[in-house]
Amino acid sequence: MDDQVFRVGIIGVGRMGADHAERLSRRIANARLVLVSDPDSARAEAVAGRYHGVRTASDALALIADDEVDGVVIASPGSVHEGQLLACIEHGKPTLCEKPLTMDSESALRVMRAEHAKGRSVVQVGFMRRFDPEYERMKELLGSGRFGRTLMLHNTHRNKDMPPSFRSEMIVRDSLVHEIDVARFLFGEEIEEITVLSPRPSSFAPEGVVDPQVSFFRMTGGGVVTNEVFVRNQVGYEVRCEAVGETGSVIAGRPATGLYTTSSGVAGAWGGTIPQDFRARFERAYDLELQAWVDASRAGSVVGPGAWDGYAATAVAEAGIESLASGQPVRVALVSPETLS
Amino acid sequence: MDDQVFRVGIIGVGRMGADHAERLSRRIANARLVLVSDPDSARAEAVAGRYHGVRTASDALALIADDEVDGVVIASPGSVHEGQLLACIEHGKPTLCEKPLTMDSESALRVMRAEHAKGRSVVQVGFMRRFDPEYERMKELLGSGRFGRTLMLHNTHRNKDMPPSFRSEMIVRDSLVHEIDVARFLFGEEIEEITVLSPRPSSFAPEGVVDPQVSFFRMTGGGVVTNEVFVRNQVGYEVRCEAVGETGSVIAGRPATGLYTTSSGVAGAWGGTIPQDFRARFERAYDLELQAWVDASRAGSVVGPGAWDGYAATAVAEAGIESLASGQPVRVALVSPETLS
Amino acid sequence: MDDQVFRVGIIGVGRMGADHAERLSRRIANARLVLVSDPDSARAEAVAGRYHGVRTASDALALIADDEVDGVVIASPGSVHEGQLLACIEHGKPTLCEKPLTMDSESALRVMRAEHAKGRSVVQVGFMRRFDPEYERMKELLGSGRFGRTLMLHNTHRNKDMPPSFRSEMIVRDSLVHEIDVARFLFGEEIEEITVLSPRPSSFAPEGVVDPQVSFFRMTGGGVVTNEVFVRNQVGYEVRCEAVGETGSVIAGRPATGLYTTSSGVAGAWGGTIPQDFRARFERAYDLELQAWVDASRAGSVVGPGAWDGYAATAVAEAGIESLASGQPVRVALVSPETLS
Amino acid sequence: MDDQVFRVGIIGVGRMGADHAERLSRRIANARLVLVSDPDSARAEAVAGRYHGVRTASDALALIADDEVDGVVIASPGSVHEGQLLACIEHGKPTLCEKPLTMDSESALRVMRAEHAKGRSVVQVGFMRRFDPEYERMKELLGSGRFGRTLMLHNTHRNKDMPPSFRSEMIVRDSLVHEIDVARFLFGEEIEEITVLSPRPSSFAPEGVVDPQVSFFRMTGGGVVTNEVFVRNQVGYEVRCEAVGETGSVIAGRPATGLYTTSSGVAGAWGGTIPQDFRARFERAYDLELQAWVDASRAGSVVGPGAWDGYAATAVAEAGIESLASGQPVRVALVSPETLS
Repeated sequence: MDDQVFRVGIIGVGRMGADHAERLSRRIANARLVLVSDPDSARAEAVAGRYHGVRTASDALALIADDEVDGVVIASPGSVHEGQLLACIEHGKPTLCEKPLTMDSESALRVMRAEHAKGRSVVQVGFMRRFDPEYERMKELLGSGRFGRTLMLHNTHRNKDMPPSFRSEMIVRDSLVHEIDVARFLFGEEIEEITVLSPRPSSFAPEGVVDPQVSFFRMTGGGVVTNEVFVRNQVGYEVRCEAVGETGSVIAGRPATGLYTTSSGVAGAWGGTIPQDFRARFERAYDLELQAWVDASRAGSVVGPGAWDGYAATAVAEAGIESLASGQPVRVALVSPETLS
Repeated sequence: MDDQVFRVGIIGVGRMGADHAERLSRRIANARLVLVSDPDSARAEAVAGRYHGVRTASDALALIADDEVDGVVIASPGSVHEGQLLACIEHGKPTLCEKPLTMDSESALRVMRAEHAKGRSVVQVGFMRRFDPEYERMKELLGSGRFGRTLMLHNTHRNKDMPPSFRSEMIVRDSLVHEIDVARFLFGEEIEEITVLSPRPSSFAPEGVVDPQVSFFRMTGGGVVTNEVFVRNQVGYEVRCEAVGETGSVIAGRPATGLYTTSSGVAGAWGGTIPQDFRARFERAYDLELQAWVDASRAGSVVGPGAWDGYAATAVAEAGIESLASGQPVRVALVSPETLS
Repeated sequence: MDDQVFRVGIIGVGRMGADHAERLSRRIANARLVLVSDPDSARAEAVAGRYHGVRTASDALALIADDEVDGVVIASPGSVHEGQLLACIEHGKPTLCEKPLTMDSESALRVMRAEHAKGRSVVQVGFMRRFDPEYERMKELLGSGRFGRTLMLHNTHRNKDMPPSFRSEMIVRDSLVHEIDVARFLFGEEIEEITVLSPRPSSFAPEGVVDPQVSFFRMTGGGVVTNEVFVRNQVGYEVRCEAVGETGSVIAGRPATGLYTTSSGVAGAWGGTIPQDFRARFERAYDLELQAWVDASRAGSVVGPGAWDGYAATAVAEAGIESLASGQPVRVALVSPETLS
Repeated sequence: MDDQVFRVGIIGVGRMGADHAERLSRRIANARLVLVSDPDSARAEAVAGRYHGVRTASDALALIADDEVDGVVIASPGSVHEGQLLACIEHGKPTLCEKPLTMDSESALRVMRAEHAKGRSVVQVGFMRRFDPEYERMKELLGSGRFGRTLMLHNTHRNKDMPPSFRSEMIVRDSLVHEIDVARFLFGEEIEEITVLSPRPSSFAPEGVVDPQVSFFRMTGGGVVTNEVFVRNQVGYEVRCEAVGETGSVIAGRPATGLYTTSSGVAGAWGGTIPQDFRARFERAYDLELQAWVDASRAGSVVGPGAWDGYAATAVAEAGIESLASGQPVRVALVSPETLS
């Protein structure tokens, strides 16, 4: 065996996990998918069967413990992340864990404490936007001082549609959580207060669901972030972010990218196509995220968002869900990093 | 005398008034500037002297009463508007009054009541954005039903710089007031609640001034509006507005308009120029506003925003200033239109 | 009578003439339409009847000679321009003549010689693009030296559709003529050679008509201009121009101007609307052109493109029609300006 | 050894070859760089030393013959391509050959004949634009019939600067050759005539060098292509392509992509950054090209442009160089594909 190649096991091969399997097998250098597991064993067999030399494990813990697995991708439901993460930490195996880290801040804290106790970071959380070339360049520009101190961020996050089961709280926990991470990433600060407003819902929102939602964050340094999250916009996936500094602003995700067409088909319109889901928009970010994880893992390090980022995002989302219910601003209480040791 | 030409007097020939004088004399059909007044009589003489056959009046009330004046443009400071408006109403002369209508909602109410008592509308308020082709088209598109019900509006309003005397309250009363009118115009509803947040100020803001400001409106129909007002952005004048409906969105004031250039002067940059003040951005809107006022006045009618719009905007701005101080949402209490009669 | 107001007569009130009548009556300062003429006297009556105090003249020459007419707009067919222009020159009346100046360079020369003999310029040719704010700013930028010497120009000129009677030669004479003028305007040089290529026609072109056409010019200073003219593109009116200098480039007429929308109606598309005809695109240029003509005429001068520009454009178009037939480059032979005196 | 991994040797590790080495080692799945060769053996050692387990070969032919090499990337100067390609064909090894295929159409013909004689295609030519997502999507759209038949193509190809040794002929052979391939790719037809015009050169062009160049192609189906190639524009790398069909148009490489910024640093400008070289613009296309080559090679097939495309492009470039000298249109004479067998 070539000792250069990083051997990966994937836990959970639903949509995200299967995407990661494909990515690892077709587009990532120096890595090889060797093992998959899924409670649905037929699904595990099906995904394994697509690639040369991939086995299935009886369960997640067996996968984590497997000697041929150098690193683990967790793409299982958030509700089982905690145990899987603790096992990965125990085995000291580099882990890329899809968001959310865990379901609540208490369990996220336990994961962080376990990592601290072990004395070695192994967890990267799947906030892929940090690997999107535009967000990355934005971070760099804001850090360059060219725009002065960052004062505000304006985020737009829209999906074409969601199943009826995607309720108001999930809009906070699974959608807004990306803006939570982006705000922390671009400001380099924590969020200290969150307010979630409930506009009158779109008539495409299921009964009782607040969609769209408008929210704002206060950062610890005094900056303000505004967010629109609208997961049933009937149009497509649109993610934009404008950062406003003291002497200029930067916009990522400008709508007018890609091909520009005119066509008699639409009564003299110019324009282009909006991606229909997040995978089209962030395909490259996912590739870069996974390659970065492989590269760092082979070098014995961790890059990108770690367990603390997963914990902090979870804590802000919890406060956001509270605010969604009350309509009032809610303060975010994070543990002091010192208490971890 | 040609009875077709509409003869106009201008009260106050500072920057705005002098602009209107130039516009009337050089670009507006079927109107003629005949009289100007200004407490600074040298300034009045100077402006009158630029054009053929323009006289000066001893004061605003003499101008309003002058037999050769068919209509009045009020471009004096807001603190003296009330008396001038009451005189225009008394004389039944069509009046284009620069915003603000008056300094507070009480005086605005008195103006409305006078107009009602007289039984004839004569006042148009100078919210010029309603005449900007993009805002006008946006209103039309939203009204077409093509985007479903309007759910949200996101406004950006930035100036390059302001004198130190332009304090936090003025950012609400003189800048945000345009977004207040735009929200009322595009939704076709009143604002029922306003919250003004105070991010940590830019270091270019004078001591004690909250700049930028982020604010939110709740519309009576449940829609939500977000606003950024930043009057010392060091860059230029940028006004954008995105309306989000149930099935699509519309953006006015997109940054990428006009010429597109590349130049070695800026290290391989592409782009264009940002207008340095509101006059460059809204020059055409001002022309169209004034022409529309002349045309309507000659036809014996009033178009565009009237006294009620001036009153409502003033009342929302008052609530906004209260919110700026308290940091809390403040409800807007408008009189019932029925109480006017 | 107010001696400040410039009294205008319009010859020919078809589409262009009627547009000018409307413009003069509704949007132009210091001018008044007083007289119209048209071989179709019912049409003349109809247009005159729309405005207060407008009379009809028995014919073009009577209109030109009328004492109440201070200036003349010629919007008749090109085939009768020569006689009308000679009469205007004879009467010394400022004249705005729609393009083409005349039907061939010989007759254009006669007009120029008459103007010279009279010793006073009175003719402005209706190349409205010179008054479009983007072209005007482009001229200014290129003249600033910021981009070095101008090396190339790339023009795109598209119409949605044309009647079958609009033949190959007319695409040169009536459409490409605008690019001819733009090239001369932006370079500040004459065109010395023109080549018109005939791509295989669109299936929407009538039998025997070459549409689209690709052409190029060599300027006297060595610059090269490429042009696409496509008058049945089925989409809308698109006019773009890119000037390339030694150290940068400038684009006018970028497609992505105005409102930006998304809508589920078009399967997740973003974009905007393309003007459906030249009037929507150049409405403002026409207004500015007419106002500039009125202002200059009142001041006793002529601005914008004059008889020489009309002559030179006609001569280049003649060479272009020759090239269209032969497929070969054709040199443009202009008289020496000295021979005029 | 893992038999799944495709083992690659690279001939020539100058800028392009070293880029490919980096790409293969860091971003491409299922491939491994095993061998490099370069006449400059120190350079070969340096590149080999950067990666684990990469050897150097004594020369190109040894590399091609090496048992551990499954496929070959040729990144040597064009003048030595012929012999190397013939050896690759002889050994039946999949080969990705940087353009130009060879230096003239005669030698390109010999390569094609050798491949035919062997009865198996192994050569892919490095026209990476075909793998750029925008060009690929454009091809797909034009093929969909949505825009009717393709009528015209307008290409812009600009570099910031080139060494003085980059002469007029090289602008045709090394720069314009990309537009030659793009025209053939998007039309799916051959070029039957080429005209290269020589505008007056930029003052940044070395003495005797024609830069910029404007050229035209006639396609066998009657379509027309215009090209601007300007390799010392002082600004950056700009590649754009507009395809015009009967009922609409498509633009790739629109300038306004990526981040949008405003900054007081540039006097109120909005805009973005222009890539400074082709690698930044086409980085992704190169990655996708190499991955596609690896994937196809592992599957025993060839994708993308082959030897015929390399031959045809060379033949058109030859005609272009002749036209550059004469200023006349030159017809392109391709052998009949049937003569190959």
